[in-house]
Amino acid sequence: MQLAKGVRDVPPEEKMVKNRVLRTITETYELFGFAPLETPIIERMETLAAKGGAGRESDAVKEIFKLSDQGNRKLGLRFDLTVPLCRFIAMNPTLKLPFKRYQLGRVFRDGPIKLGRYREFWQCDADVAGTSSMLADAECIAIAATTFKSLGLDVILKVNNRKILNGILEQVGVRNGEEAIIAIDKLTKIGKGGVEKELQDRGYTKKQSEQLFKYIKEGVTLRELKKKITNDRGKEGINELEELFSYLKQMGIKSTTFDVSLARGLGYYTGTVFEVFLKKGKITSSLAAGGRYDNLVAMLGGRDIPAVGFSFGIEPIVDTLLLQNNDQAKTPTKVYVIPINTTQESLQVAQQLRNAGISTSLSMGKKGVSKNLQYASALQIPYVIIVGPEELKKNKLLLRGMQSGEEQVLSLQQVIKRVK
Amino acid sequence: MQLAKGVRDVPPEEKMVKNRVLRTITETYELFGFAPLETPIIERMETLAAKGGAGRESDAVKEIFKLSDQGNRKLGLRFDLTVPLCRFIAMNPTLKLPFKRYQLGRVFRDGPIKLGRYREFWQCDADVAGTSSMLADAECIAIAATTFKSLGLDVILKVNNRKILNGILEQVGVRNGEEAIIAIDKLTKIGKGGVEKELQDRGYTKKQSEQLFKYIKEGVTLRELKKKITNDRGKEGINELEELFSYLKQMGIKSTTFDVSLARGLGYYTGTVFEVFLKKGKITSSLAAGGRYDNLVAMLGGRDIPAVGFSFGIEPIVDTLLLQNNDQAKTPTKVYVIPINTTQESLQVAQQLRNAGISTSLSMGKKGVSKNLQYASALQIPYVIIVGPEELKKNKLLLRGMQSGEEQVLSLQQVIKRVK
Repeated sequence: MQLAKGVRDVPPEEKMVKNRVLRTITETYELFGFAPLETPIIERMETLAAKGGAGRESDAVKEIFKLSDQGNRKLGLRFDLTVPLCRFIAMNPTLKLPFKRYQLGRVFRDGPIKLGRYREFWQCDADVAGTSSMLADAECIAIAATTFKSLGLDVILKVNNRKILNGILEQVGVRNGEEAIIAIDKLTKIGKGGVEKELQDRGYTKKQSEQLFKYIKEGVTLRELKKKITNDRGKEGINELEELFSYLKQMGIKSTTFDVSLARGLGYYTGTVFEVFLKKGKITSSLAAGGRYDNLVAMLGGRDIPAVGFSFGIEPIVDTLLLQNNDQAKTPTKVYVIPINTTQESLQVAQQLRNAGISTSLSMGKKGVSKNLQYASALQIPYVIIVGPEELKKNKLLLRGMQSGEEQVLSLQQVIKRVK
Repeated sequence: MQLAKGVRDVPPEEKMVKNRVLRTITETYELFGFAPLETPIIERMETLAAKGGAGRESDAVKEIFKLSDQGNRKLGLRFDLTVPLCRFIAMNPTLKLPFKRYQLGRVFRDGPIKLGRYREFWQCDADVAGTSSMLADAECIAIAATTFKSLGLDVILKVNNRKILNGILEQVGVRNGEEAIIAIDKLTKIGKGGVEKELQDRGYTKKQSEQLFKYIKEGVTLRELKKKITNDRGKEGINELEELFSYLKQMGIKSTTFDVSLARGLGYYTGTVFEVFLKKGKITSSLAAGGRYDNLVAMLGGRDIPAVGFSFGIEPIVDTLLLQNNDQAKTPTKVYVIPINTTQESLQVAQQLRNAGISTSLSMGKKGVSKNLQYASALQIPYVIIVGPEELKKNKLLLRGMQSGEEQVLSLQQVIKRVK
């Protein structure tokens, strides 16, 4: 028996880390007042392939997993959580706005398999639909920063505004700017030379490229750009960003930085864009990203509703945490109880530990103390209790710390105190 | 835009209840030392349709959602979490046994749509693979009982053992007993008369039917049966059940009852079977069910590994809780902050509430206090804070309890104390 290609199992030692990440994200979303939503994994193809749904990435539509037709149905698996959100908003016209919702779930893309890229993966989205206030953009960025702080990850949040990029393109007289934006987006990755070459490949003149690089510089500040950009579109983007940064300051959110080259691939962003990277470490892909998309809900058949949102990339976050600590336990069990001809009493002991909130496993059908100790050790369970008839007579238990090998004869209450 | 048939959205007011259920189940599984596993939703058809995988319900294989072929792949969506567990065990021969794992996730069945029956739904499984000890069966039943207690649901756990049923069939000389078991399983639902008719329809004689009803009686006790059953198979089943009930007694688990007619539809159960029902209420479908399946792992290509497990039916549990309380809030937000020309200060107030662990939303782009109060009321947010310039000068905030309408001028610290 084999797995399908491009998907994987997540064994307990990794799933425990993944669950911690999902729990931290959920708690932060709820702390900021976002409400959970669940939508189905199976959607109609007409929804998934709707104009605008996949942005300008026609690849995303090509990569939809389709269900085989039975009775002429056209169904597929969702490839993100944004399209289902827009469908939900369109189907619920009485929804109170702004609608602050989060959703955690798996999405599916039938694309080429690369290292660390799967055909089935998690997205964890938060979006605010129904307001163009920069307060919503600030909340998204604040949530991302708060979550990474809770996870103990040192990150940098790069922020930009698509109106600034569009303003620059307008100012230097570049039309069909989307192709240029895709090239510019790669500045950090491939450097100035790489972007120049890509601009040329995409049909831009050398002069246009030179003009663009008067604005698009690594490390250029918002203040510097403000002096150079004179058209309305660009100014609007700068004003929005200044407002956004002022809110973030009030909220005590540091670790954000302006990056004029940041665009985000998808074509549907209209204002704020941001992306989160590890400050240092092996994982260079983004750990979270998002932005404002004021036209998408209308494009997908809903009312004209501005929106902003973002998503955590769970797999790279989990990979980062696993690299930091490769000594993961294989079970949540804190105490493993070994009966020596004391099954009935050991059952009571195990239940009392559980009643005290301690994760407890009881040996089942394993003979002999040493085999049981091997088992506990292999699963990296921190404590073992041996319930022997002699100790029981004195109302005592033998507690063994598996790391130290230290053994103590204690009462149940003492055990609970020690383990907690 | 529409949903596909047989699937549904879960809006925030329901999803919050669902999340509480999922969290309670997860916590209980971990308290009993079960480790989380994640397997993909997409599996190879050869795994899903493997002999034994769908038990004797060939329907389950017919009901697999297949992905449309691209490059001759044969892929489908999992229809339960047991088959993927068996595949995981088969693929990981060095796994330490017993393997106590839990898994929460969606499964898919392309079957007829009925009220309360969906094509995409959740299963929450816990299984112990690698031991035939009744301690494992006892843990499964104890987990179910503990979870329903935590959820505040008054349930009855019906328990039986397939060996008892097989022993009875042997004793009365019925061959091809599986058909008879399917009929007997319906005793509670359709009564003695209904079962008699079904036995007849399935080709059993009147005499066989009469013989069977000497053993299969509503309310018959284990003690009564023990006197009547003389063959080895039946006796083994009775001994196992007696051992199981003695463990449950030590664990302090009540609300279990022996029910000789309980069989569970699927053919792969070999010993203990159990099913959980509400004591009273509108929902009559089972809320959790499971049993021992000592042959399935081997049938699915793994080693010969005995196993026991069960699953919660999330949708009927959530429906039950929603019926008990139809006044669900539409957001986790506890405090809604309304600035009156005090956006910057209000941002600080909102952040300080969040730092104190209070779920807080800040008004975004909504003009006027009354519109904001309407919004908070519609979402059933319990508290509103109005941040006015006059109060701010005195370092005070106006707190309004939305239920009572009561307003108080308090310091931030007082607000936190009051709301918590």
